[in-house]
Amino acid sequence: MSHVLSDEAVANAMEEIKNNLSSRRPDDDNILPHIHKVSTPPKQSLFQDIKHNFNETFFSDDPFGKFKNQTGSRRFVLGLQTVFPIFEWGRYYNLKSFKGDLIAGLTIASLCIPQDIAYANLANLEPHYGLYTSFVAPLVYAFMGSSRDIAIGPVAVVSLLLGTLLTDEIPNFKSHEYLRLVFTATFFAGITQMALGLLRLGFLIDFLSHAAIVGFMGGAAITIALQQLKGLLGIKQFTKKTDIISVMRSVFSAAHHSWNWETIVIGVAFLAFLLATKYIAKKKKNLFWVAAISPMICVIVSTFCVYITRADKKGVAIVKHIRNGVNPSSVNEIYFSGKYLSAGIRIGVISGMVALTEAVAIGRTFAAMKDYSIDGNREMVALGTMNVIGSMTSCYVATGSFSRSAVNYMAGCKTAVSNIVMSIVLLLTLLVITPLFKYTPNAVLASIIITAVMSLIDIKAAILLWKVDKFDFLACMGAFFGVIFQSVEIGLLIAVAISFAKILLQVTRPRTAVLGKLPGTTVYRNILQYPKASQIPGMLIIRVDSAIYFSNSNYIKDRILKWLVDEEIQRTSSEFPSIQYLVVEMSPVTDIDTSGIHAFEDLLKSLEKRDIQLLLANPGPIVIEKLHASMLSGLIGEDKIFLTVGDAVATFGPKGADL
Amino acid sequence: MSHVLSDEAVANAMEEIKNNLSSRRPDDDNILPHIHKVSTPPKQSLFQDIKHNFNETFFSDDPFGKFKNQTGSRRFVLGLQTVFPIFEWGRYYNLKSFKGDLIAGLTIASLCIPQDIAYANLANLEPHYGLYTSFVAPLVYAFMGSSRDIAIGPVAVVSLLLGTLLTDEIPNFKSHEYLRLVFTATFFAGITQMALGLLRLGFLIDFLSHAAIVGFMGGAAITIALQQLKGLLGIKQFTKKTDIISVMRSVFSAAHHSWNWETIVIGVAFLAFLLATKYIAKKKKNLFWVAAISPMICVIVSTFCVYITRADKKGVAIVKHIRNGVNPSSVNEIYFSGKYLSAGIRIGVISGMVALTEAVAIGRTFAAMKDYSIDGNREMVALGTMNVIGSMTSCYVATGSFSRSAVNYMAGCKTAVSNIVMSIVLLLTLLVITPLFKYTPNAVLASIIITAVMSLIDIKAAILLWKVDKFDFLACMGAFFGVIFQSVEIGLLIAVAISFAKILLQVTRPRTAVLGKLPGTTVYRNILQYPKASQIPGMLIIRVDSAIYFSNSNYIKDRILKWLVDEEIQRTSSEFPSIQYLVVEMSPVTDIDTSGIHAFEDLLKSLEKRDIQLLLANPGPIVIEKLHASMLSGLIGEDKIFLTVGDAVATFGPKGADL
Repeated sequence: MSHVLSDEAVANAMEEIKNNLSSRRPDDDNILPHIHKVSTPPKQSLFQDIKHNFNETFFSDDPFGKFKNQTGSRRFVLGLQTVFPIFEWGRYYNLKSFKGDLIAGLTIASLCIPQDIAYANLANLEPHYGLYTSFVAPLVYAFMGSSRDIAIGPVAVVSLLLGTLLTDEIPNFKSHEYLRLVFTATFFAGITQMALGLLRLGFLIDFLSHAAIVGFMGGAAITIALQQLKGLLGIKQFTKKTDIISVMRSVFSAAHHSWNWETIVIGVAFLAFLLATKYIAKKKKNLFWVAAISPMICVIVSTFCVYITRADKKGVAIVKHIRNGVNPSSVNEIYFSGKYLSAGIRIGVISGMVALTEAVAIGRTFAAMKDYSIDGNREMVALGTMNVIGSMTSCYVATGSFSRSAVNYMAGCKTAVSNIVMSIVLLLTLLVITPLFKYTPNAVLASIIITAVMSLIDIKAAILLWKVDKFDFLACMGAFFGVIFQSVEIGLLIAVAISFAKILLQVTRPRTAVLGKLPGTTVYRNILQYPKASQIPGMLIIRVDSAIYFSNSNYIKDRILKWLVDEEIQRTSSEFPSIQYLVVEMSPVTDIDTSGIHAFEDLLKSLEKRDIQLLLANPGPIVIEKLHASMLSGLIGEDKIFLTVGDAVATFGPKGADL
Repeated sequence: MSHVLSDEAVANAMEEIKNNLSSRRPDDDNILPHIHKVSTPPKQSLFQDIKHNFNETFFSDDPFGKFKNQTGSRRFVLGLQTVFPIFEWGRYYNLKSFKGDLIAGLTIASLCIPQDIAYANLANLEPHYGLYTSFVAPLVYAFMGSSRDIAIGPVAVVSLLLGTLLTDEIPNFKSHEYLRLVFTATFFAGITQMALGLLRLGFLIDFLSHAAIVGFMGGAAITIALQQLKGLLGIKQFTKKTDIISVMRSVFSAAHHSWNWETIVIGVAFLAFLLATKYIAKKKKNLFWVAAISPMICVIVSTFCVYITRADKKGVAIVKHIRNGVNPSSVNEIYFSGKYLSAGIRIGVISGMVALTEAVAIGRTFAAMKDYSIDGNREMVALGTMNVIGSMTSCYVATGSFSRSAVNYMAGCKTAVSNIVMSIVLLLTLLVITPLFKYTPNAVLASIIITAVMSLIDIKAAILLWKVDKFDFLACMGAFFGVIFQSVEIGLLIAVAISFAKILLQVTRPRTAVLGKLPGTTVYRNILQYPKASQIPGMLIIRVDSAIYFSNSNYIKDRILKWLVDEEIQRTSSEFPSIQYLVVEMSPVTDIDTSGIHAFEDLLKSLEKRDIQLLLANPGPIVIEKLHASMLSGLIGEDKIFLTVGDAVATFGPKGADL
């Protein structure tokens, strides 16, 4: 009943109902049957049941729905469009969209060239491998991906992760084995991503919680920024470790002999310039392009300065060598056997998962902003194929980049064509202008990286975590400190471990609440949330807030008995009548398994010894079916299972208690 | 409102309310305020909040409650009683209880002596180690344990598990290293159990689901029975493997040269006798003692027969050597360093966990039957201490035995004193009569084991699993076939893996339901369960049946949008008005984390694009607090959060829809 009414008519009606009610009791012979009983849903066959559950788990998005009732040739076209969405949206592509995509593509290309050169360095690779990756990967993605806003290429965190994991295996990163292991890891990263998508296991990446990602990304950003002190200060001897203590020690021990003032001047000047443009772009949204093209300007200006002044002779480190021409084939470089195979698989799986997490997060964010949908599993297949092809064409692991995707979006991209534009610009760069980067100072690359990774530190998100959920905040901080004080792997491990701990807590310690009646209604609510709600004399009403499974059935049983004991003590002192009925509100109990059934049997036995009757309110479809299958409903008594708590109180409660 | 009423008064009242309702709309200025709004619970400080969650997770049974408001000396006594419950119940102990315990103790002693000798063989140990274990362990448990019915000692499954795991490490089980590793594993099994109890992590054993245990136990029972074919048929060369295929091949390849007919006669005859007494005991509950003492009778009769006929000269294998005297110390035998330490820890942790699972299951079963409570964590400390002391006194891993505990219960035990009686009988046995077991034929021990493990095969439970929960049945069968076709470890691994898979499914794929109004009420229920429930024109009401966490937030968002699309298609064809309001019934949503908040933000954006408004019904205390903390409630609009679905329909639904 609505609570908006309180005029005379309602008051009179209430009075009548109340009078009527007090004149009858459950043992009354004249009692009329309940209008509604708890019903059991239409019985499904075992096959239907399993099919339904299987579909809901793996095919909840109904990917084959559109293939139904179609002719063979139509199915082929639909299948082609499913694998290559470009054939779907390509048909509606027009000049106006192309204008948006062209501008966006040129903007992200100018941003990605300096970033690529710098990120390749994080993975201990020569700069042209970054450019190779930004040429092939976006092209493949444009044909197969379903996000319209993502910008594909190498990213900082994955580059650092790859670099760290790979140097643990092969410390000499100048060796040919190192390069081969990079391609091997990239290949298996792609295979992992494809497999997750094809096996419809995309939901596994949801196990890395948002909170853990915020912490991990923030930690990784700081770690990457600290690594750049090498380039920024011109230090020659630098630690291989990534934790903050080793890095700071390395920085200060080099202070009095190896800092190079020319390098510092270049580095700090351009860093200041980049941060200033970033600040401008943040303040005025329509000036976003200033921040987007400033890295390119830095590279051009600094390269020119160094070339003119020959500052490289004075100790300013420069890129030196950067190969001309397009990607050579690397099919024969991948290890399919030998001692590095297992390392390649392991590193591939880890970096593939991290890359996937980043890409899917970006895809979802922009899809929600423009209200289109992303098929997570199909997206994984696209990203996986892209990396497999990449591993055969001298690329390393590519994924969606946070910073470039945001620029892409703001520059007005309409479709994945902006990635194709970027790819073509990269092709021209590789063919024509790479030799010009020879004199680019490393210090500028370092300042570009520092500026780029700053946006990965999301302090606002951390504050929100603190406000909303302390446990999430703990997960965030755990991952953050794990990364900066230990290493990226440890941080990742902590992030996953805390995420899992939270899930385990959720399934072992569900909440229960004592309900009371809101005065003047038949609504029963948690008495802690609604202090006005009053308990029914002789009855204790408890709501169980979770499916009852083996992992929590014993806890739930014990907790209910504990509520009972606590209430009995409290009621004895307040001269309330002792408890005769325990009502369990089952609305939130969506499922129960055999352990849960056994726990209820035990509860029933304990209650019998105390002369308390068990009443159930509103068991759901699955629960009522299982209560019947296990004969537990017979033990409890069919007449003790009610549609609502109100019904149970009306039937067994004291006179007039239900009104 | 109760649905038991349907006479004229109610009908009139309804009519009046309806008339009254149709005359006003939400934009009506004269509208009266809701009687009840969704309230936010009293704000708790961060410390209180953390304390509450911590207590609920680790101290949900409030173990320190009784220490409050007590004097120092009283606290000491209470503390002593907590660690040694015998000082608590011992004060009320009387002769009547002792009579029950004496009879029960003598009965289980007669059952346990032959079982101990047999089980020691399963662990590849000499027979007296089984007797040692049944002397020390029950004594320690009697002082520290809180179960009144459990019978402590070596058990079949743990013995087999230990034997298998240990021979994987040290194949030569006659060596002294093997024995030392047994004590090491026992020591760490005890430490594991103690640690779980002291760290209040007892809930971890709940992760092994009931279904998995049923399958694992059944498989282990068959494996153990098959192993006994060696003793029963007198085979000399027998496989070391435990899977059914290896064992059967071993049995049949030995058929034409190594089966010993005298052994077979003894074995089969006594097996028939044991099964017959077991059958009698099952049919007539008061003859349970027949089955309880029959193993002892078998041992005495068969030993006498072999001694008289000197059948051991004709190839009947006998126990041969059994050491006299009480347990020697084994403190110096435990490996605290060296190459076997890690194996000892690993095997100890596994066997300790399995032993714990069995003991806790038994403890809980009998506690529920007699309605007393078992403190799981304290119980683990007791069992752990018992095994640690055991490992120093030449015992191996002991735990509660299913079969002997049942006999103990039926023989009328009152307290753990029955374990003390059993222990004293074992002491006398060790001191006086062990040499008499020299001529006991192995075939009789094999038939005792076969009879004992039969009760671990619980076909009824498996049938119930099939009926109630198909996924549970799958877990059960997975563990069962894993054990019999592979090995105990593989079976255990499958059991744990399937249990975890179920938890993961639970947290990633929660259920959602479309609700409709039951005619003549304001109750909204799942339209699939209640086909009579009707949907409200222009509104879609969806209930989310789970806390919204990172692991399921994206799925829930996508699922809600999918419901919306499906319903829109259906409604278009049936000429229903299009959907303007989406009501999310939040009653079962007990918690929400930041990922959940983000999912709702995304949902809100998607709904805005479709011109659909989001209404929330009955968010719980934690959810409403987080909605406020994250400002999401402001985005949704405070006026769009309702106490019940009925209120939301009354406010925004079509005229009169709420009645």
